[in-house]
Amino acid sequence: MTQPAPTPPAQSAPTQAAAQGLPRTLTRELPRHEGQTVRLQGFLHARRDLGGVQFLVLRDVSGLAQCVGSGLDLPLAESSVEVEGTVKAHPKAPGGFEVQVTAFRVISAATTAPPVEIPKMDWHVNPETMLDYRVVTVRGLKERAALKVQAELVAAFRDHLNTEGFTEISTPKIVSAGAEGGANLFPIEYFGQQAFLAQSPQLYKQIMVGVFERVFEVAAVYRAEEHATSRHLNEYLSLDVELGFIQDEEDVMALENRLLGAIMVRLRERCAAEFTLLGAQIPDVPAHIPRITLMDARRLVSEKYGHAVGGKDLDPEAERLLSQHYAETEGSDFVFVTKYPRAARPFYTHADHNEDGSLNPDLTRGFDLLFRGIEITSGGQRIHDHAMLMDSITSYKLNPASLEGYTEVFKYGMPPHGGFAIGAERLTAKLLGISNVRYARAFPRDRHRLTP
Amino acid sequence: MTQPAPTPPAQSAPTQAAAQGLPRTLTRELPRHEGQTVRLQGFLHARRDLGGVQFLVLRDVSGLAQCVGSGLDLPLAESSVEVEGTVKAHPKAPGGFEVQVTAFRVISAATTAPPVEIPKMDWHVNPETMLDYRVVTVRGLKERAALKVQAELVAAFRDHLNTEGFTEISTPKIVSAGAEGGANLFPIEYFGQQAFLAQSPQLYKQIMVGVFERVFEVAAVYRAEEHATSRHLNEYLSLDVELGFIQDEEDVMALENRLLGAIMVRLRERCAAEFTLLGAQIPDVPAHIPRITLMDARRLVSEKYGHAVGGKDLDPEAERLLSQHYAETEGSDFVFVTKYPRAARPFYTHADHNEDGSLNPDLTRGFDLLFRGIEITSGGQRIHDHAMLMDSITSYKLNPASLEGYTEVFKYGMPPHGGFAIGAERLTAKLLGISNVRYARAFPRDRHRLTP
Repeated sequence: MTQPAPTPPAQSAPTQAAAQGLPRTLTRELPRHEGQTVRLQGFLHARRDLGGVQFLVLRDVSGLAQCVGSGLDLPLAESSVEVEGTVKAHPKAPGGFEVQVTAFRVISAATTAPPVEIPKMDWHVNPETMLDYRVVTVRGLKERAALKVQAELVAAFRDHLNTEGFTEISTPKIVSAGAEGGANLFPIEYFGQQAFLAQSPQLYKQIMVGVFERVFEVAAVYRAEEHATSRHLNEYLSLDVELGFIQDEEDVMALENRLLGAIMVRLRERCAAEFTLLGAQIPDVPAHIPRITLMDARRLVSEKYGHAVGGKDLDPEAERLLSQHYAETEGSDFVFVTKYPRAARPFYTHADHNEDGSLNPDLTRGFDLLFRGIEITSGGQRIHDHAMLMDSITSYKLNPASLEGYTEVFKYGMPPHGGFAIGAERLTAKLLGISNVRYARAFPRDRHRLTP
Repeated sequence: MTQPAPTPPAQSAPTQAAAQGLPRTLTRELPRHEGQTVRLQGFLHARRDLGGVQFLVLRDVSGLAQCVGSGLDLPLAESSVEVEGTVKAHPKAPGGFEVQVTAFRVISAATTAPPVEIPKMDWHVNPETMLDYRVVTVRGLKERAALKVQAELVAAFRDHLNTEGFTEISTPKIVSAGAEGGANLFPIEYFGQQAFLAQSPQLYKQIMVGVFERVFEVAAVYRAEEHATSRHLNEYLSLDVELGFIQDEEDVMALENRLLGAIMVRLRERCAAEFTLLGAQIPDVPAHIPRITLMDARRLVSEKYGHAVGGKDLDPEAERLLSQHYAETEGSDFVFVTKYPRAARPFYTHADHNEDGSLNPDLTRGFDLLFRGIEITSGGQRIHDHAMLMDSITSYKLNPASLEGYTEVFKYGMPPHGGFAIGAERLTAKLLGISNVRYARAFPRDRHRLTP
């Protein structure tokens, strides 16, 4: 334990300096280097001075390392630092190893102490402060664990769909009208024209079924809803899927079932530490997620739990109770709620059929997927027949002229198709037991929050 | 060759029907099924009636199949159809095989003939008509080839960065101010507040270097530029990269060099047919892409080609000539132009150093990458030191107060870092020899185009 070696500040170091020194070791690699000298780089996560002996915790992308030295001139927490030292087994250190510092260098000094202590943060405390200072609080271990899990979830989503022959698409977020009608759209001034931020890629992913048959998109969507709940965001990452040449919505649900299975396999392989840190369990996805029609679901929560459901859909309490029922009786964290009534679905939802094959005007092939008490997907089969679509528009008392942009592609032989969308932040939050969906997004936008 | 079997319309077929029949075969799988009966599904790409014998070309996601039958009641082009038939070798058919139709079914009939003949389209003809009818013209073989190549390019970008320890992020596109100052932003009305569409994830990807060290994002960005050129879009897919703990911009260029190599490997593996269709060549990426400083580049095009470059950067003609030089002398389709002058780079670009290690106020560590005569990347090392950043803001005569949202994170020990961004459509267009970048986006937005 010596004085830190005098080194020039990073920005004036010649390019070759690092190449001549030790290669960088990540903190998670320490067990492989016991007894060796390593060079670590990262952020000064925590520091403590015990009468001349200094403990510092270095945080890098892979974890934490406890380092011990003496006579070090430690900068403020969150500074970027470099440590050279010897790796020793140490049962009480995080990961079981400690680095005995032989050289210490400040790469880039923090000029201000963080407004909250990053190692002690908890997102249940002072959420607005945590979000106001998100540029630095997002470095917290739990914060980044949530974003890491989301990145892996999204990667698994893409990878699985690629194995099933899907093609990734990128569709416009600047649109001339909303897919679901005019409500809840953010207006944009577009070269003197009125435009809007897209609520969903609904029409565009349907058009692209005519090109690639099976498509997906991962992109932000925008809802100008003035809600202030723990489950809504005004900008969120939508995992959108659409597939053609289907028989009915069962094909869509079966795909989502396989997809969720693949996502959980990947999270198990790559995110075990993050789930442990957050005290959360990766769910088992049944080979066949239970299905229940909406009408049967309403009846079940009423008869079993005495909860009378208002409206045409399920209310949040009914979603919770229905999930509880399937967790208790079938051990499933997931349940599909099927055959939504027409009044609870948008105009482009395909009608269900009666047993004789005739159309049922009151029921649709729309479904929701509940996960641990909350809806994480809406999906269904869409109308592909132009005449049926025009009839639906009329029966919803919508203006066909204002929907011409939507209906155009259905003149050109669209095959039967359907799809769904998963809100990435909501699924991440629910997987990890994060109480507010805003912590599952790096820089959330809500009614009052435009920064950072 | 028999009459088509009477089958019910798809929407009333019971769910189990398909399962009981033949499984679907893709057109590219026909060679494996010679002599067998197959079931194809797809779009009626082309049709021809030769005195009772009918030829139809079925298009599915994997290619085309020529089918021949008689007495078929063929619907309009682009209808979704199903063919059952026997696979026969036939040297003149696309792919060398033909299907002799034993059953034919219209899955979903087009109600209108396409406004242009999809098999005969060429995007050099009538670009505005092609884009007005994009909902159906996007089905063209060349159109979809471009979007397929882009999807693979983006997938290769992600996959390679994942192998180098990068984490994918999703940053806000609704922002309170632009990263590059206030110009060229689309205004959004956000719950009574003024907001804008993000021009770039610049600040946010830098912030996230403090979390994951190495990050990337694939997302649309927005430029309210009133240009009407063949190389600009107002909404485009930006492939953004940022990495920390670097020595200087050389680390950033070396990463981009490896990344482009990986992208071309994947395109060779998966997109050979698309490049052949478009008559384009996949470039070789040198192990070390040539570098030239901007000043030397300006001198070279002046001395070798007699082209005097105005302004502080390279003009389009100079980019073309410089690329020509490296193609001719080093056989490289790529060249990095380095050491941009401060006046040609944004305030956050890191200064270059003199040989004695002191800062050079006039040169930066910013670079561009040219590919076949056009800039496809801007990148560089960023300022990570808070005091240096504040000095830079002052020297650019910008208002520090208006940039507080930008500068905040640099109080917290940001490591040396840099990055770059690639415009996905521009790279795709240049790779494929597509003259207008709008054809490398499914639904382009320009000054005059908000639909479809």
